[in-house]
Amino acid sequence: MGRTRFDKAPCPIARVTDLVGDGWTPVILRDALLGRTRFEDFQTALGVPRAVLARRLARLVEDGLMSRVLYEEHPPRHEYQLTDKGRAFVDVLAAMWRWGADWLWPDGERPALMLANRETRREVRPVVVDEATGERLDARKLRVVRAQGA
Amino acid sequence: MGRTRFDKAPCPIARVTDLVGDGWTPVILRDALLGRTRFEDFQTALGVPRAVLARRLARLVEDGLMSRVLYEEHPPRHEYQLTDKGRAFVDVLAAMWRWGADWLWPDGERPALMLANRETRREVRPVVVDEATGERLDARKLRVVRAQGA
Repeated sequence: MGRTRFDKAPCPIARVTDLVGDGWTPVILRDALLGRTRFEDFQTALGVPRAVLARRLARLVEDGLMSRVLYEEHPPRHEYQLTDKGRAFVDVLAAMWRWGADWLWPDGERPALMLANRETRREVRPVVVDEATGERLDARKLRVVRAQGA
Repeated sequence: MGRTRFDKAPCPIARVTDLVGDGWTPVILRDALLGRTRFEDFQTALGVPRAVLARRLARLVEDGLMSRVLYEEHPPRHEYQLTDKGRAFVDVLAAMWRWGADWLWPDGERPALMLANRETRREVRPVVVDEATGERLDARKLRVVRAQGA
């Protein structure tokens, strides 16, 4: 998929697709959210080809989800730190996690991994709700309309 | 991206990436959730090449998010209906919508489209929370651990 295909789309889902459609990007962001910052660490952990990883990280910097920061001067070494925008992407990954855990494992099985709170060690089960009501979304009741004043 | 690369991954995000990494898939699912069912309608609305659309729909059927249903016998015509698994994907799309709306428009601008409740016409702002506490997720407090008993 060409990287600019959806980046001016009026629909937020389409614009995000332009980013997550980049194959490795969601798992790179997942590892970044879990604390990884260095090229070599991403490369080893994910087994992603170096050229692909370099392109994905460069794009995440360009799109403002990460910043490339010098952490050692001699020799010069950089690490990739999440910005607020990148850190907020946890919501998308968490929704992917929940749906995947609910639907992509055989009946009666569950992922060998779980999300947990770092301090309490309690399991965290992400759920998507309507901010105003706290209720889970119901696809049958949703529609897309033109925004007021837009 | 090869379609089987992440489909046995232990991480739910990786497995979902295998699906949404398929370029057009999120926008096809978006349109399906909003009521579209027919090949010609998807094709016209999205401007997606016919061969690509056919492959994406076939995969969504194969993966159990849609079922292909005969709705007219002479001549035979099929439509694509979401399954429960497909309808549940609204959570992932909603999280993409919210993050995209928050971060992919210039300051002071907002998408020309909004999500709304079909009956009340009120805006719906999806938000991802911890099911147990109702609190928004904080990336800094999350970790991935081995599930108990897995």
